[in-house]
Amino acid sequence: MTSKQPIGLLDSGFGGLTVASEVLRQLPQEDIIYVGDNLRCPYGSRQPSEVKRYLFQIMDVLAEQDVKMIIIACNTATAAGLDEARTRYSIPVLGVISPGSRAAISATQTERIGVIGTDVTITSDSYRREIHRINPRLYVVNQACPPFVQLVEEDRTDTEEAHQIVARFLNPLQDEQIDTLILGCTHYPLLAPVIGEVMGDKIKLISSAEETAREASTILQVKHLLNDDNPVPQHRFLTTGDPDYFRKVGSRWLKREIEVTGITLLP
Amino acid sequence: MTSKQPIGLLDSGFGGLTVASEVLRQLPQEDIIYVGDNLRCPYGSRQPSEVKRYLFQIMDVLAEQDVKMIIIACNTATAAGLDEARTRYSIPVLGVISPGSRAAISATQTERIGVIGTDVTITSDSYRREIHRINPRLYVVNQACPPFVQLVEEDRTDTEEAHQIVARFLNPLQDEQIDTLILGCTHYPLLAPVIGEVMGDKIKLISSAEETAREASTILQVKHLLNDDNPVPQHRFLTTGDPDYFRKVGSRWLKREIEVTGITLLP
Repeated sequence: MTSKQPIGLLDSGFGGLTVASEVLRQLPQEDIIYVGDNLRCPYGSRQPSEVKRYLFQIMDVLAEQDVKMIIIACNTATAAGLDEARTRYSIPVLGVISPGSRAAISATQTERIGVIGTDVTITSDSYRREIHRINPRLYVVNQACPPFVQLVEEDRTDTEEAHQIVARFLNPLQDEQIDTLILGCTHYPLLAPVIGEVMGDKIKLISSAEETAREASTILQVKHLLNDDNPVPQHRFLTTGDPDYFRKVGSRWLKREIEVTGITLLP
Repeated sequence: MTSKQPIGLLDSGFGGLTVASEVLRQLPQEDIIYVGDNLRCPYGSRQPSEVKRYLFQIMDVLAEQDVKMIIIACNTATAAGLDEARTRYSIPVLGVISPGSRAAISATQTERIGVIGTDVTITSDSYRREIHRINPRLYVVNQACPPFVQLVEEDRTDTEEAHQIVARFLNPLQDEQIDTLILGCTHYPLLAPVIGEVMGDKIKLISSAEETAREASTILQVKHLLNDDNPVPQHRFLTTGDPDYFRKVGSRWLKREIEVTGITLLP
């Protein structure tokens, strides 16, 4: 394996672009290949076994592209399949749950942490388990927020409706005395302004996107796989959905023009 | 190597206790062994070759104690000897410069970063090189602050004199439009309140202590060396200086009673 190979990223749709965006910012000399499974998005309320099957299909696509690392830029897929994925592939596989957990452990002063995510992520209890593995004394409270992904995918984050939905789902967290809230879904950084408004500015919001890009940097460095000489990096985007629509949304999210190719996966 | 072995940390004196403190907070189930070379402190204005010789003496002590990882909790020693240390020992060796650099890359929005440290650290230009290796577009400005270590070692951080010295040495950074300042010396987190006052609250201060503990957590996890079952962790402290004085200062810094053993190294 060499430092010149690209990093592979995948998500159920657009959400993982928040991770891709942080990879482009924090590791600007890396080539990346991103796969969005927009045709089957959202993953959040599917059966974990189904999510896992989709995950391995996409990881196979990335492995064929000779990537040096795969980032599962999707909390739902990380919760459903990271452990098994690590045994299936010989390259480093990074999920979004460990980096977010570690950042929350570092950030909290009151030792009380909240986690929001999709149904699959919250039901898996993955964040609490990961945090308690490292520090069993911390208090962790989970809250599923199923409608948040659709608000982002449908570009409705800046509406009064979004504010009302966010306020309703975060209400149970208001009396928990948390000082740190993990945005346990890669879509949620785009709702961060609304979430911050509802929770107040004393609550630190942890973006799994930012933290995952940073941890990818650490791991690549330790494994001597950091690309430190690549003045014209290549960024490729593949989608199971409509490439034109992905190009439009993706270019806006990443604040740069992107090229997108359509791919077909087995059902 | 097993997850049950301790983490080794070393510093020229007390400064690395800021890293130890963060390891105890972020990795509360780890055993640690800390060596402070108080007899020969400070390292900051010595020749790099001399610092390197001291570094390897202490790393040999830690290696004999069967540690699973060594954290060089001293910027000066990291700048002088990390690369060579990595080839001398087969266990993971972590310095404080990469974690601080990576955190600054993640934190900056204006893409302008300041670095303060000792003479050896600043002359080595290690932070700028590390940051530019990952992102050559960022602007990095260095400033040596030789008297800061003594202010901390002699417990004079809370004085008007300290405020004046800090203001004088940080003055050249005021017009640099930085938004992120790396505290490139493990002593400096104890001066953070004064530094924050002088620089203003818009400047993000990066503590290499906090970031190094977090990166240690990442690396231990990737290498399957994270201790996740150790309800009564052991913390041992060794010093080349006066054990009673180390116990007094160390207990205050770490906010817990510590036991300290004196050791003798070759001159």
